[in-house]
Amino acid sequence: MIHTLFADHLSTKQIIHGAGLKSRYHHIWHMDEPLEAACVLLPESTQQVSTILKICHDRGLAVVTHGGLTNLVGSTETKENDVVISLERMNQIEEIDSESRTATVQAGVILEELHRATDSQELLFPLNFGARGSAQIGGIIATNAGGLRVLKYGMTRHLILGLEVVLADGTIVSNLRKIIKDNSGYDLKQLFIGSEGTLGIITKAVVKLVEKPKSRYAAYAGLKKYESVIQLLKHIDAGASGKLTGFELIWKNTYEQLTSASDAVRPPLPYDYEYYVLIEIQGAHPDKDIQLLEHLLENALEEEIIEDAVIARSQSEVDWFFRIREDVNNLVDFMPYDQHFDISIPIPEIGGYIARCYSRFRESGIATQVYAFGHVADGNIHLMIGKNDTSKATKEAIDHLVYQEIETLNGSVSAEHGIGNHKKAYLKFSKSDSEIAIMKALKNQLDPKGIMNPGKIF
Amino acid sequence: MIHTLFADHLSTKQIIHGAGLKSRYHHIWHMDEPLEAACVLLPESTQQVSTILKICHDRGLAVVTHGGLTNLVGSTETKENDVVISLERMNQIEEIDSESRTATVQAGVILEELHRATDSQELLFPLNFGARGSAQIGGIIATNAGGLRVLKYGMTRHLILGLEVVLADGTIVSNLRKIIKDNSGYDLKQLFIGSEGTLGIITKAVVKLVEKPKSRYAAYAGLKKYESVIQLLKHIDAGASGKLTGFELIWKNTYEQLTSASDAVRPPLPYDYEYYVLIEIQGAHPDKDIQLLEHLLENALEEEIIEDAVIARSQSEVDWFFRIREDVNNLVDFMPYDQHFDISIPIPEIGGYIARCYSRFRESGIATQVYAFGHVADGNIHLMIGKNDTSKATKEAIDHLVYQEIETLNGSVSAEHGIGNHKKAYLKFSKSDSEIAIMKALKNQLDPKGIMNPGKIF
Repeated sequence: MIHTLFADHLSTKQIIHGAGLKSRYHHIWHMDEPLEAACVLLPESTQQVSTILKICHDRGLAVVTHGGLTNLVGSTETKENDVVISLERMNQIEEIDSESRTATVQAGVILEELHRATDSQELLFPLNFGARGSAQIGGIIATNAGGLRVLKYGMTRHLILGLEVVLADGTIVSNLRKIIKDNSGYDLKQLFIGSEGTLGIITKAVVKLVEKPKSRYAAYAGLKKYESVIQLLKHIDAGASGKLTGFELIWKNTYEQLTSASDAVRPPLPYDYEYYVLIEIQGAHPDKDIQLLEHLLENALEEEIIEDAVIARSQSEVDWFFRIREDVNNLVDFMPYDQHFDISIPIPEIGGYIARCYSRFRESGIATQVYAFGHVADGNIHLMIGKNDTSKATKEAIDHLVYQEIETLNGSVSAEHGIGNHKKAYLKFSKSDSEIAIMKALKNQLDPKGIMNPGKIF
Repeated sequence: MIHTLFADHLSTKQIIHGAGLKSRYHHIWHMDEPLEAACVLLPESTQQVSTILKICHDRGLAVVTHGGLTNLVGSTETKENDVVISLERMNQIEEIDSESRTATVQAGVILEELHRATDSQELLFPLNFGARGSAQIGGIIATNAGGLRVLKYGMTRHLILGLEVVLADGTIVSNLRKIIKDNSGYDLKQLFIGSEGTLGIITKAVVKLVEKPKSRYAAYAGLKKYESVIQLLKHIDAGASGKLTGFELIWKNTYEQLTSASDAVRPPLPYDYEYYVLIEIQGAHPDKDIQLLEHLLENALEEEIIEDAVIARSQSEVDWFFRIREDVNNLVDFMPYDQHFDISIPIPEIGGYIARCYSRFRESGIATQVYAFGHVADGNIHLMIGKNDTSKATKEAIDHLVYQEIETLNGSVSAEHGIGNHKKAYLKFSKSDSEIAIMKALKNQLDPKGIMNPGKIF
């Protein structure tokens, strides 16, 4: 019995197996399917993670690391003999240093907890996305999460100053310095950021914080043409000089659906336009910031970049505007089954690509619904496709309709979600053979026995 | 004769050897010492770089890549049998895409040329430092350069979207996508950024551009205490919400020296303070931006964070203010010999650390001058030490005085310059044995024959 191997090193409560495991643990977020695994281990220190990995390494046992399980590509899926290491008990914010503007956090800290803690010190950890109430910082780093404010603050990668990682053989590699610049040798942390648990287990991090903004405003604008969307992005970004924190595009049919489910997501603008853009600005001077947003939108109206706009003036209106964009269940709930995509494409190509996608789906008749929306300022669009069955043939046919242009457009099959289990077959559309060969060599170098999240990415 | 190996693949003008080499080529920027090398090769395409590397790889010839030679740590130093590959002829800006807000550039493009080209399209490549007239983009990426605007825009690493690299064996690994987000597998470009030519040769890049600011203002503030410097940073950064692009600290004695050399660098503030901060803000609304800066500095005066301040109101005044900070020759020219440092330390520790440094140098009597200044918002300080001789003993004694606290303070011996040849002995103060072991394994993986810039970093 695999779970007995750890009995000398962990307390009984830290080793979950048998019936307890199946009732309490899942593969993925919001899924009722019980977990298949030899055991779930709940280490409480980096040293315990190291000890567990040494044992697994010696015996060649497969290890899958679990955080908040909010990834959407099967990165945390397991098989029946896998050892699952969940970092949920390593959930301490060890320090918030308001002068260094850094936080030192254990991997199991939930993003929303970190937001709360930094907020009380007039600081902000800028990363923000829908799953913030469940996602853990270790998983966030392991998947290089993106979200709603990448435009201003960058991906997770850009916010990580230091990492502590345990390698496959149990070696602890720690560099938790609170420094912004360090060009002493190769920047090893970059290897582990976004590696989806295949190269090591992230146990702690030093993250960068910024001064907390004092205002937050949002607006919806309605536009006729995709070209105008790019003009608006450039206009607002140039004019807001550092205050533009969000720029989300929603296609007409998606906007109609997202604003139809209940009064809580009622439409801020009528259904008269082809494109709807949700703009977020944050600044330090509430009065001036709202004037700036008004001024920029008035200019855009005068220059006929936009057809109409409405500004959220209170916190509750801002919440309403964002709820529309974030409650994607209002799309999925009406689908028999759903299949979602997270693609990157150069910004100028997005309008034409999505139009061709819609028409390919219309012609094929394979989908029940097609919705497009996303972080257009980052070139990152999500597609939500409804379908009538869960067959492999249907899945692959839908994948084909979405991915067929990615390679020629020099895009990516995964902008922010990762490859995990679900997108392995399509990695070749984003990466060349020589790149994949180097990735495999790196994997083999750091995990020669192949025990870390085996079968993911490749 | 090594240079004859390339005669079938390059024109005569692309192969420099013998007397021509010694008269035209140098080890490092601004040094008269002639280059020692078997030859300097001037490839004009990625394919030629690949061919050269294949030949060198087959025969185990050491390769040193040269860009603008502006690095300060001996990264480009050579030995007599080395093959030098200079990318000066691969100097085309292939595309500036104002909608994607990207530039696709060859490695030999000089930073200032890229600035000029983006400027004419109302865009900005934000990287900026003193050597911009010589530094080439390939070397900038290979050393992950920093400079004066890291505070807002990050290091070079944060501005690179795509890379084309030629590996030691000649394999071309190209990922020149104009996309901001790509989580499809490991982010291999991160490995090459900052690797100082030891893992491959960067031949092209896609870099991120931003909308060009429409205003630029600068100010000097005088302060009594280091604690006030941190308060000022937080005050201005919070209040300028995205417009603060520079925050440079100059210690009193350094300020006195920097402002004494000529009228072109006359002092904007009297010599009454312990610390001088140069602030740069950039925005989209000239009138409002200057009011904002005035307002923030008035507040800082009222709250007794600063003792005095003066604002540069014209472009020529802004140039004057920056000339003071950038003309470090005004320090070095008065030194018999100089030794410079580029350290990172957590921001709250810097004041005490530099004070201890000054007093250690005073007590030791080993230095003729000690000057401190730097990018305090990034935790990155430069020290310039004057000395009377170039002996190894003096150099090491000075190194010891500066580096002795770096490890305990969790700092770095190289914030932005790299390790190169000069700092190898001190890498251990910034990186653990296990980190260095992984670096060496990566090097061995990608360059098993050890031909790429041998002897650098390790």
